[in-house]
Amino acid sequence: MTTVAVIGLGIMGGPMAANLVKAGFDVVGHNRSPDKVKTLVDAGGRGADTVADAVRDADVIVTMVPDSPDVEEVTSGEGGVFANAEKGALYVDMSTIRPDVAVGVAQAGRAAGLRVLDAPVSGGEAAAIEGSLSIMVGGEADDFAAARPVLDAVGKTVVHVGPAGSGQTVKAANQLIVAGNIELLAEAVVFLEAYGVDTDAALEVLGGGLAGSTVLNRKGAGMLAREFAPGFRLALHHKDLGIVTTAAREAGVVIPLGAVVGQLVAAMVARGDGGLDHSGLLKLVTELSGRDQNREES
Amino acid sequence: MTTVAVIGLGIMGGPMAANLVKAGFDVVGHNRSPDKVKTLVDAGGRGADTVADAVRDADVIVTMVPDSPDVEEVTSGEGGVFANAEKGALYVDMSTIRPDVAVGVAQAGRAAGLRVLDAPVSGGEAAAIEGSLSIMVGGEADDFAAARPVLDAVGKTVVHVGPAGSGQTVKAANQLIVAGNIELLAEAVVFLEAYGVDTDAALEVLGGGLAGSTVLNRKGAGMLAREFAPGFRLALHHKDLGIVTTAAREAGVVIPLGAVVGQLVAAMVARGDGGLDHSGLLKLVTELSGRDQNREES
Amino acid sequence: MTTVAVIGLGIMGGPMAANLVKAGFDVVGHNRSPDKVKTLVDAGGRGADTVADAVRDADVIVTMVPDSPDVEEVTSGEGGVFANAEKGALYVDMSTIRPDVAVGVAQAGRAAGLRVLDAPVSGGEAAAIEGSLSIMVGGEADDFAAARPVLDAVGKTVVHVGPAGSGQTVKAANQLIVAGNIELLAEAVVFLEAYGVDTDAALEVLGGGLAGSTVLNRKGAGMLAREFAPGFRLALHHKDLGIVTTAAREAGVVIPLGAVVGQLVAAMVARGDGGLDHSGLLKLVTELSGRDQNREES
Amino acid sequence: MTTVAVIGLGIMGGPMAANLVKAGFDVVGHNRSPDKVKTLVDAGGRGADTVADAVRDADVIVTMVPDSPDVEEVTSGEGGVFANAEKGALYVDMSTIRPDVAVGVAQAGRAAGLRVLDAPVSGGEAAAIEGSLSIMVGGEADDFAAARPVLDAVGKTVVHVGPAGSGQTVKAANQLIVAGNIELLAEAVVFLEAYGVDTDAALEVLGGGLAGSTVLNRKGAGMLAREFAPGFRLALHHKDLGIVTTAAREAGVVIPLGAVVGQLVAAMVARGDGGLDHSGLLKLVTELSGRDQNREES
Repeated sequence: MTTVAVIGLGIMGGPMAANLVKAGFDVVGHNRSPDKVKTLVDAGGRGADTVADAVRDADVIVTMVPDSPDVEEVTSGEGGVFANAEKGALYVDMSTIRPDVAVGVAQAGRAAGLRVLDAPVSGGEAAAIEGSLSIMVGGEADDFAAARPVLDAVGKTVVHVGPAGSGQTVKAANQLIVAGNIELLAEAVVFLEAYGVDTDAALEVLGGGLAGSTVLNRKGAGMLAREFAPGFRLALHHKDLGIVTTAAREAGVVIPLGAVVGQLVAAMVARGDGGLDHSGLLKLVTELSGRDQNREES
Repeated sequence: MTTVAVIGLGIMGGPMAANLVKAGFDVVGHNRSPDKVKTLVDAGGRGADTVADAVRDADVIVTMVPDSPDVEEVTSGEGGVFANAEKGALYVDMSTIRPDVAVGVAQAGRAAGLRVLDAPVSGGEAAAIEGSLSIMVGGEADDFAAARPVLDAVGKTVVHVGPAGSGQTVKAANQLIVAGNIELLAEAVVFLEAYGVDTDAALEVLGGGLAGSTVLNRKGAGMLAREFAPGFRLALHHKDLGIVTTAAREAGVVIPLGAVVGQLVAAMVARGDGGLDHSGLLKLVTELSGRDQNREES
Repeated sequence: MTTVAVIGLGIMGGPMAANLVKAGFDVVGHNRSPDKVKTLVDAGGRGADTVADAVRDADVIVTMVPDSPDVEEVTSGEGGVFANAEKGALYVDMSTIRPDVAVGVAQAGRAAGLRVLDAPVSGGEAAAIEGSLSIMVGGEADDFAAARPVLDAVGKTVVHVGPAGSGQTVKAANQLIVAGNIELLAEAVVFLEAYGVDTDAALEVLGGGLAGSTVLNRKGAGMLAREFAPGFRLALHHKDLGIVTTAAREAGVVIPLGAVVGQLVAAMVARGDGGLDHSGLLKLVTELSGRDQNREES
Repeated sequence: MTTVAVIGLGIMGGPMAANLVKAGFDVVGHNRSPDKVKTLVDAGGRGADTVADAVRDADVIVTMVPDSPDVEEVTSGEGGVFANAEKGALYVDMSTIRPDVAVGVAQAGRAAGLRVLDAPVSGGEAAAIEGSLSIMVGGEADDFAAARPVLDAVGKTVVHVGPAGSGQTVKAANQLIVAGNIELLAEAVVFLEAYGVDTDAALEVLGGGLAGSTVLNRKGAGMLAREFAPGFRLALHHKDLGIVTTAAREAGVVIPLGAVVGQLVAAMVARGDGGLDHSGLLKLVTELSGRDQNREES
């Protein structure tokens, strides 16, 4: 039986660990705040008090933590993943972090005798619960093959996209497209409202043509209702757009729409709306257009 | 048997008329260049030498012409639709034109005793041939109900979105979203190429998550191959973005991404690339990033 | 003695007419609301009840009205300038209007036997009072030479920039640069405030280097104090940026910064701040950055 | 007699050192490539083979090097400024570097017993030769007072703008404004050319009104002539806009125009034009507008 250690049992990592249990894996979970561990144990997994304890006997180690420094912290040092995992174990970081940090982590992990993949996900909490995440994987093809059973237990579209760091690069591109698609839909919605169009009908027909998108399908109705409970918070998307902007700059890639939507997301965070769902960009467009959020809802 | 006159038998109007024939309508077609009429006659329709001849006995009149002035020309004057159609006939303009012009045309048509709808389409040549267009319809609910059999013969998603002009307003929003989605995908593609990611795999996984879109599904592979044969030409999309920009300005709606992508499309046209498919925005992003189109293809 | 008719005695036209009186011209003024005429009469000019009366015996006719339709109205028709002025009189429109309208007005004026110049101004109310306006003149060189004495009485930098319409084209470029320079200064000010820099000192040193500008010299201190009383209203600048955007589009000129600042000015107007001075763009940047206007003032 | 060590005798540092000699200071220079030292010795200064030798007996130490890592390297380590300068010596970094690095350097310098200022300059090579630089100084007021004689020997506008790092913050704002002003002028120039206006005359009249700027005065004529020999290279401005973008992001300041012009500058560098003067942005606008650089020159 394959033992999978999961470090980070938050909004995403928690349901992913539960799906691994359901799929028949022996799951050992660790989380900074221990109450999340209890949920996993209730679901049939095991708990570990430390990272070291969690990873010691694991065949596969998954981390799902907020940001680049968290991954560096949890992998390095005496109590970290790399110092305590068995040689040959497979380390899969599923957090969303900087591609260059992912490359560094992969090098450090290999130097410690592990196999390493970066495998960030798309789809949000709903897909984490359903086990239908999209997973973009960077690393060696053999390691990807070895990780498939674990990844298939939590994801639906699981694709190997290139060498170490490539998963994070694709995730960065994903966040660029998603932020932009939301903002474009927001601009379209305010435009339609201003002209008194039936917006429910309009979104239906837009969704049936070339303007259709997963953002429109999943977020459109909530946007019309001005329901911005997360979901995926603007503050996190702001972090991710910082990754895109920097990575694009370093590679000499020009992203004019990315740069502008990055400013709009930054404005939402600066104004104190970082806790809203990223579809909350509609709030900014509504306000910049001098329109009343409440009137639009009615 | 319902007689449908179709004015404008070009890339879109031609296959739409053919689908009306297939659906059992008596179709009378007129086109400025008469060779297109022959194609319709071969498919089982009838030809008319003038607009007046085409519309005289029609129950439903459809126009599918390039731009606002063309609609005004074909409807007005002694030889036009409004002077020659029977009272009570249903006039459906399916061209993409300015919403304010559509409102004016509707007023003029009603003054002449006709019923009028604006019903622009989305989906391009492929959907026109398949009869799977998305159709966004503005006008009276009764008139929409009366037009359904005709619209259903050429479209799959057929939605009434509001009073006269609303169809064009939704089409304008459609063009805003489509141009933006293409540009975002273009920025993502160049970013992925710059980092040496497997772009085929990347587009597969992006399509499976929140970044998925009809643009990605239909245009993504062609973009990776740098195949920019139209499809929908940038010069036409440039015209449409002019409509969006002006209409947004008049309504006090702020569209920052729309404004920027409008500049990029304008640049493509100014540089002589107006004849490329709108997915050709990728060519501009590639070049602005100092990358070689040919190298990317290999 | 040269007789100059001045149509439009508002914030700009009033002081310009007064300066013409001071320079020794025989000035006949007309204004839609007659109280402005009284001010001119008190200053030594003559009043006229109608446009026709004002222009009948004038050697030079100056118009200073709000927008393109106003110029068309005042020049055309039975009671207009062109029907009532003497053949060979010199007509100088100093309003800010669309370049293509200016070309049309020039053609109509010449057809009526007049000589015509477009001569919009820059510098605002202060420069109108001081007689130190910048004047950008389109038309024939001979006509420009003939108009110099009149133009020199109200302006300091008076330049012939090309054929009919060219004055308006240069004015459009002027408005593009000015809006952009204000917005850039606004972004810089909020950036400096966020880092706790001494902003008075910073503006002094910025003004001494390559970042120096007339906008910084004239508007900088007022911006730091958040004093946004007009001056030149955002609503008017919004109108002018509409002219620039349309004219650039028609000529195939790509203006990415112009397009973005046009959106920001549009937002100010949409939100109800169109009555503020154009330096009020700082209010928007401050708010988008989540900062408190009042705190910055203290 | 005050001894001033100057580390970095390049395009800027060389003429600054020469002006310090002229002003009567005892100047000891050091440069990585020793030929620059010879020029200083010929001008009446002294040379030093190492940083340590240069700073050992200096009352004031000036560094003028390309980027943040260069300042960190030259100040730290066994052979660096801080290990070899006398306690109480005044260290003035006049390079353009990241504000947060400047703060760190100041802390390290003070820990080593020195007094520290950040004092970046604006005005370019011409102002360095003339001794007319604008200098924006961050640090303690006493230290600023002590540094005045040295700063006045190389600059004309010398202003204390706040605590450590503030000089670099103001320089970042300077680079934001300058890049934007150049781009706006470029958009205006292409617009004027497209309409066949007399651009020399237009720039004269624009310069006399609210659109006037130091950029227009110093760069306008060269831009019309398409002369883009540096001057200040786009590659360096790209570096500086990276500083602005990051610093604005960290402080939650929204800079939409800054973000867009940053993309345009990035495009120039990516396309291989990083060696042109920053006024070379005109080349990009010209090309995006489908216009011929050579035709415009004639």
